[in-house]
Amino acid sequence: MTAFRFTLHSTDGAARRGEFHTPHGVVQTPAFMPVGTQGTVKAALHRDLLDAGAEIILGNTYHLFLRPGDELIARRGGLHRFIGWERPILTDSGGFQIFSLAERRIIREEGAEFQSHLDGSRHLLTPERAVDIQARLGSDITMVLDECLSYPATRDVAAASMQRSIRWAQRCRARFAELPDALGPGVTNPGQAQFGIVQGGVFQDLRDESADATAAIGFEGYAIGGLSVGEPVEEMYAVTEQTARRLPADRPRYLMGAGSPEDLVESVARGIDMFDCVMPTRNARNGQLFTSEGRINIRNARYAEDDRPLDPACGCYTCRHHSRAYLRHLHLAGEMTAGALNTLHNLSFYLDTMRRIRDAIAFRTFDIFRQGFLRSASRLSLDS
Amino acid sequence: MTAFRFTLHSTDGAARRGEFHTPHGVVQTPAFMPVGTQGTVKAALHRDLLDAGAEIILGNTYHLFLRPGDELIARRGGLHRFIGWERPILTDSGGFQIFSLAERRIIREEGAEFQSHLDGSRHLLTPERAVDIQARLGSDITMVLDECLSYPATRDVAAASMQRSIRWAQRCRARFAELPDALGPGVTNPGQAQFGIVQGGVFQDLRDESADATAAIGFEGYAIGGLSVGEPVEEMYAVTEQTARRLPADRPRYLMGAGSPEDLVESVARGIDMFDCVMPTRNARNGQLFTSEGRINIRNARYAEDDRPLDPACGCYTCRHHSRAYLRHLHLAGEMTAGALNTLHNLSFYLDTMRRIRDAIAFRTFDIFRQGFLRSASRLSLDS
Repeated sequence: MTAFRFTLHSTDGAARRGEFHTPHGVVQTPAFMPVGTQGTVKAALHRDLLDAGAEIILGNTYHLFLRPGDELIARRGGLHRFIGWERPILTDSGGFQIFSLAERRIIREEGAEFQSHLDGSRHLLTPERAVDIQARLGSDITMVLDECLSYPATRDVAAASMQRSIRWAQRCRARFAELPDALGPGVTNPGQAQFGIVQGGVFQDLRDESADATAAIGFEGYAIGGLSVGEPVEEMYAVTEQTARRLPADRPRYLMGAGSPEDLVESVARGIDMFDCVMPTRNARNGQLFTSEGRINIRNARYAEDDRPLDPACGCYTCRHHSRAYLRHLHLAGEMTAGALNTLHNLSFYLDTMRRIRDAIAFRTFDIFRQGFLRSASRLSLDS
Repeated sequence: MTAFRFTLHSTDGAARRGEFHTPHGVVQTPAFMPVGTQGTVKAALHRDLLDAGAEIILGNTYHLFLRPGDELIARRGGLHRFIGWERPILTDSGGFQIFSLAERRIIREEGAEFQSHLDGSRHLLTPERAVDIQARLGSDITMVLDECLSYPATRDVAAASMQRSIRWAQRCRARFAELPDALGPGVTNPGQAQFGIVQGGVFQDLRDESADATAAIGFEGYAIGGLSVGEPVEEMYAVTEQTARRLPADRPRYLMGAGSPEDLVESVARGIDMFDCVMPTRNARNGQLFTSEGRINIRNARYAEDDRPLDPACGCYTCRHHSRAYLRHLHLAGEMTAGALNTLHNLSFYLDTMRRIRDAIAFRTFDIFRQGFLRSASRLSLDS
């Protein structure tokens, strides 16, 4: 059993190149984590993820707790064995889905009471229970339960919510320290790490207070939560920059839920090491593709007779074997293989972007890379 | 360019082991052809088909004619290049889909008039046009346009329909002989073969008459159409047996639309060389799996904590990596990866069954294989 360990290899400005070790292997940072909500990355088989260069995936505690249940997964030997993925897994705490998916939620000091979006059953997720569930899942990195905030929020609301998240983080860390004794054989991965989450909305003084208090508790890594929820991108970048700078330099920094390819590059430039986002997978299923020359909406009639691959610079299975014309046909015909092929490409684009980011930091050419990436058509649509 | 050629290697009773050559490669017979209706086998990437051992796939002329259109496909260099599949392809004539899918169809001597199920547009598919469309698609094996019969049908109706199908077959062959001069650069695969189709319902004298008349026209291969449409299985086997026996021994025999794994084994025993069926792919998406020990409905609660692979005797990606418990979870959660993994397994089961059939014929042990296969649980459900 390998305990969690983060090593910083090099920096280039605020950008950092490193790796972390988990019981299921090493992850190079900056890292992008494909989102495997229900124990699978939508439309992607595990071998597709490995081909695309994924070293870690994310699982959603809210979904897995409701179906098939953390206790059933623990009886299968934990989430890795249940889903047949042998590399690292990060699980969130369920807080964000209670906020965004569950019905009739009541947040009180004890925890978050909510109604399942699947069958209407009522549940109480306390900070302690969020830790226990993730212990049963046996993920490599677990997240504390935090309270998620609507955007926009007043300063008072943001402050009270942030304070509660800190109290919950303390309870999560206390419970985490009792593991595995507290749960006994239900704990399937004793080498787990636990990350704290900085909240505070777009109020930098609240972010600073949250960062300091969370760091004072002491976690294996630190996340920035509550961004990418509708605030202007400049605000997101500014909060990311100052908050990252305030967090311990010897621990990984994870910007939750971000983002577009440009967001990734811009956030690495501000000291972020880890990302997760549904954008590459969700957009793929909707026919929105990322390429080195710009974005493509494959429904566009201009691709009907386009024999080129999605991205001439891409070496993924989709680009090696199929044309835009064929992918457009599959998408319009509603074929599942459209979702699979598009997902494979978009994940390859994201993960290849991360590889190029890591190389650029190692060679201290990150700023050149960044300027080129943003100047390239990555913000532009090829459709018009 | 390789012209179509069929070679018989060995026989065991009525069962035949052989191969046919096409411009896109060799196919071992007896062969199962996965159905790629709209230019893709549903939920299966081409590499999955190759992994599973597919040597030929089927495309549907009706669907491809309506969307994206045979002329667009011809401009892409033909169906193989359009979809990125380099091995042989068989296309049907569109007749069966007009019969089963299209709306407001009017069948007259000239051809079949119908309304698209996609946009309501009206079209006339004549025998000549069915040949031209398939020439533009550039498939390796094309089928004549035939009239499909409802089951049950009176003898008079079946006879009249069969006679019309013979007249259409003559027109198809005449048109085929004019290619590629008639179409010029629109023909993308000049090495095409054309198969005739025997009709006649469940009336053996009509089947005999149809077989003789079709063989007299002279085709590269012969199909038996209009079975597997609701008639008792004994009737299907009886018609298959006598019709196959009456067809030229030096040409491949193709039983269209069949069938279950047992149907495949029983039809090979009656002299059939080629099959296509949506059963492995459609059932997979519905959670119905074929295994060497019997059939599995993955929704069944008994698999919720079953850590075994679908089929311990199967070496497919799904069985090597995933448990019944995980596949059940993915299916109930509505994940696209459930359809992909299940399809991969069912196709592997079908194609592996064909491989075992071929080996058994080569070793003259087909009858032992057949008895064992039918005795095995392949007819049984493991669910109850």
